[in-house]
Amino acid sequence: MEFTVEQIAQMLNGEVKGDKSLKVSQLAKIEEGTTGCISFLANPKYEQYLYTTTSSAVIVDNTFEPKKDYTTTLILVKNAYAAFTTLLQEYQKILAQNKKGIEQPSFISSSATIGTDVYIGAFAYVGDNCKVGNKTKIYPNVSIAEASVIGENCTIYSGVTIYHNTIIGDNCVIHANAVIGSDGFGFAPQADGTFATIPQLGNVVLENNVSIGANTTVDRATMGSTILRDGVKIDNLVQIAHNVEIGKNTVIAALTGISGSTKVGSNCMIGGQVGMAGHITVADRTIVTAQSGVTKTVKQSGRIMAGSPAQDSHNNLKSQVLYKNLPKIEQRLKEVEEQIKQK
Amino acid sequence: MEFTVEQIAQMLNGEVKGDKSLKVSQLAKIEEGTTGCISFLANPKYEQYLYTTTSSAVIVDNTFEPKKDYTTTLILVKNAYAAFTTLLQEYQKILAQNKKGIEQPSFISSSATIGTDVYIGAFAYVGDNCKVGNKTKIYPNVSIAEASVIGENCTIYSGVTIYHNTIIGDNCVIHANAVIGSDGFGFAPQADGTFATIPQLGNVVLENNVSIGANTTVDRATMGSTILRDGVKIDNLVQIAHNVEIGKNTVIAALTGISGSTKVGSNCMIGGQVGMAGHITVADRTIVTAQSGVTKTVKQSGRIMAGSPAQDSHNNLKSQVLYKNLPKIEQRLKEVEEQIKQK
Amino acid sequence: MEFTVEQIAQMLNGEVKGDKSLKVSQLAKIEEGTTGCISFLANPKYEQYLYTTTSSAVIVDNTFEPKKDYTTTLILVKNAYAAFTTLLQEYQKILAQNKKGIEQPSFISSSATIGTDVYIGAFAYVGDNCKVGNKTKIYPNVSIAEASVIGENCTIYSGVTIYHNTIIGDNCVIHANAVIGSDGFGFAPQADGTFATIPQLGNVVLENNVSIGANTTVDRATMGSTILRDGVKIDNLVQIAHNVEIGKNTVIAALTGISGSTKVGSNCMIGGQVGMAGHITVADRTIVTAQSGVTKTVKQSGRIMAGSPAQDSHNNLKSQVLYKNLPKIEQRLKEVEEQIKQK
Repeated sequence: MEFTVEQIAQMLNGEVKGDKSLKVSQLAKIEEGTTGCISFLANPKYEQYLYTTTSSAVIVDNTFEPKKDYTTTLILVKNAYAAFTTLLQEYQKILAQNKKGIEQPSFISSSATIGTDVYIGAFAYVGDNCKVGNKTKIYPNVSIAEASVIGENCTIYSGVTIYHNTIIGDNCVIHANAVIGSDGFGFAPQADGTFATIPQLGNVVLENNVSIGANTTVDRATMGSTILRDGVKIDNLVQIAHNVEIGKNTVIAALTGISGSTKVGSNCMIGGQVGMAGHITVADRTIVTAQSGVTKTVKQSGRIMAGSPAQDSHNNLKSQVLYKNLPKIEQRLKEVEEQIKQK
Repeated sequence: MEFTVEQIAQMLNGEVKGDKSLKVSQLAKIEEGTTGCISFLANPKYEQYLYTTTSSAVIVDNTFEPKKDYTTTLILVKNAYAAFTTLLQEYQKILAQNKKGIEQPSFISSSATIGTDVYIGAFAYVGDNCKVGNKTKIYPNVSIAEASVIGENCTIYSGVTIYHNTIIGDNCVIHANAVIGSDGFGFAPQADGTFATIPQLGNVVLENNVSIGANTTVDRATMGSTILRDGVKIDNLVQIAHNVEIGKNTVIAALTGISGSTKVGSNCMIGGQVGMAGHITVADRTIVTAQSGVTKTVKQSGRIMAGSPAQDSHNNLKSQVLYKNLPKIEQRLKEVEEQIKQK
Repeated sequence: MEFTVEQIAQMLNGEVKGDKSLKVSQLAKIEEGTTGCISFLANPKYEQYLYTTTSSAVIVDNTFEPKKDYTTTLILVKNAYAAFTTLLQEYQKILAQNKKGIEQPSFISSSATIGTDVYIGAFAYVGDNCKVGNKTKIYPNVSIAEASVIGENCTIYSGVTIYHNTIIGDNCVIHANAVIGSDGFGFAPQADGTFATIPQLGNVVLENNVSIGANTTVDRATMGSTILRDGVKIDNLVQIAHNVEIGKNTVIAALTGISGSTKVGSNCMIGGQVGMAGHITVADRTIVTAQSGVTKTVKQSGRIMAGSPAQDSHNNLKSQVLYKNLPKIEQRLKEVEEQIKQK
């Protein structure tokens, strides 16, 4: 999409200083922008780039006074940062509106219920008795198995697999090749050393405003539901095991694994490559730093946990420093031993 | 599917106490069930829920004597736990039988051999010279490249990619978006700092009763085969590198990585987020705890390994405790130093 | 494919000693080969297998003199190892040439530009305004979103998702179910505890000769580009976050995660399950050992980093050994304490 600087100024209630007819089609950082780009300047640290940028236009506060010559066109607004955010959102909206209608060939079961204003891409599969809410977008090569329900205004990117009986609320985003509802890892050891598969008959429930990263996996419950509450945000390549429950607005970074039946509270922040044992409870507002291993229930809310096994971050930091200094500590011990011998 | 309580009682050789005509369509835990659900009570700890549950029916031992009033219908059987397991398996079987036939559009090479009673979903791709055994189910959007052989009674869920020349035995389950047979990570460093790709000409062999988790990757061998023996069970997001061999009935939890050419014995239990170095051998019945890093061959079978680098779990536990107490240890050392100075 | 021993000898400028008419169709290690296989003997350690192998033919140096009887046919060449490598590459080329043309049904937007000699598999999706270079192969069930550009001679395996505006150079290989261009994990905390999604408007750029492993994810930049430079090789299940830049010829092993805005230098070697914090810089030729956590900028090039948090490998090794010996160290400290008491 292409806009004139004037059109953008109107959108932002701004005033143009320079060539109004210039065309811009891309958003860029001020230090990276080139012809055809629009950038913004909010942080004074970046002011230097205003005088050298080749972005076609730069959004600035209307109180801003340049100290050197510049070649770009300015758009003066009340708050440059807020205006740029508005622009980002408008741009995103326009992009999203592009997708509508049902591409062919796709496979939609005759027993499925499809809302209005949906997008269903080619090679998408919607199984028996599924429901797809209004304005939801299902990209190419998505597979949705029978009796799954997807709310309104969701975006399911290409290659996602949703197993049977999954329930997804409104405004959820599932990134490419994620898997929702795969069997929990449940096997019963037999006398002869083999394992019998324990049927996984529950499902997965994603409430509203949940975001799931690319190639992330969320296993169905053995019975009952694996539940991700309102506003949960999960990064890429995360494993959520069977019967796990994640509280509202909890955020989990990439490559983390939550083991079976663990309950994570609301508004927690879990770093990357964290592991959590099964059957534990983690209180609300817990922060877990990257690569930690949480092996026990965390009862008190608001703690910062670190290390493997995880302990209070404060304590872990002390141990970490001493770990690095172990050679020195051992040397000191040696010296003490020597001195004692000599006495 | 919907059954009357009477039909279920007949299936389980049980006796109904209450309304035989009630309809149930779902299995649920006794503490979570609602109208239309059937639950079971085997563990006395859960007896309290019998008196409050709104499940339509509960399976109980025929020796059970209620101590309070209840509103649910009882199904009396010899062994409630065993009866419920039977029910789970019957339910699973019925679910599985639903899938049969070849949906359109799908792509089946004219040189492929397809068994009887198979299911091939829409947008599934079966390449040249592939063989698909009887009763095997291939879900939508699966890709199977040329000359791969899949045994009988396998289930390949949506989005799985199987590269050329892969050999899969009978009764295997591969969960969604897993990848079997991708190139091993083999690059030969060149004088100019670039890397030349080493052709990966081997394949992957999964023997019988192997289960592969969602988004797991199993690389093909450089030459020869990457082999997962009978009954191996792999969780989600696991990496099995080229030329690895995993022994019978070994179980591997999520986010673990096994490096190239490593041989893992049979009946091992490998925790989540474990790493194993390449070109090592791990003896039968080894247990590796979560987040450990196995860097050396484990010769003696039946050991429990923990830590990174991994050592005997028993020793690692001691070191872990002392690591947590390093600040105290350093304090004790300081005191000793002071005392020596003063003497 | 099947060749006679004579045909292969001609290809390698070799001389046959034995039955020229034997047919071979597979490459195998000398210790594993069977009828129909061709193997090689370069390392004297493996000479014993020559006398027992059932491979139909074995490539040997023309200076080789057998010391015992053997039943296989020999192909004598100047350098057996080099000849076998040639054979591998020829075999790979023949395999690759098999794929050409556009299978149906596939979805190619009328505004897409498709080069010559391409392969586009069934159920592949090429969106609006995409460009696909000459000789590039797009396997079944691949999804390429609008305005993405893919260079010449690339291979995109089944199930890969490429988001909009992605730019991919020449000779790149992307393995199955990898995701290129998913949204960066960017959420702005709101006063009520929820998170607002930060639009991710940048893209991903893969330069030339880049290799991406199966189920690996590369997030698009918030603004600007996530960039993987010439010759970068990434293993399976790796997470590359938004705005990351990876320098030329850097190699990253499986299950590693690089956090947002981090810049990794050229010719680095990053082990498996490594984590890197966001907004740091890692110098050229840095080596990071498996399971390490790099939390700070590494300024000096050529260092070997280990541990979590990572330090010089040399120091980390010392700490590791002492960690294992912590029980002994504590015992020594106890003895010192006792002795002091007694004095």
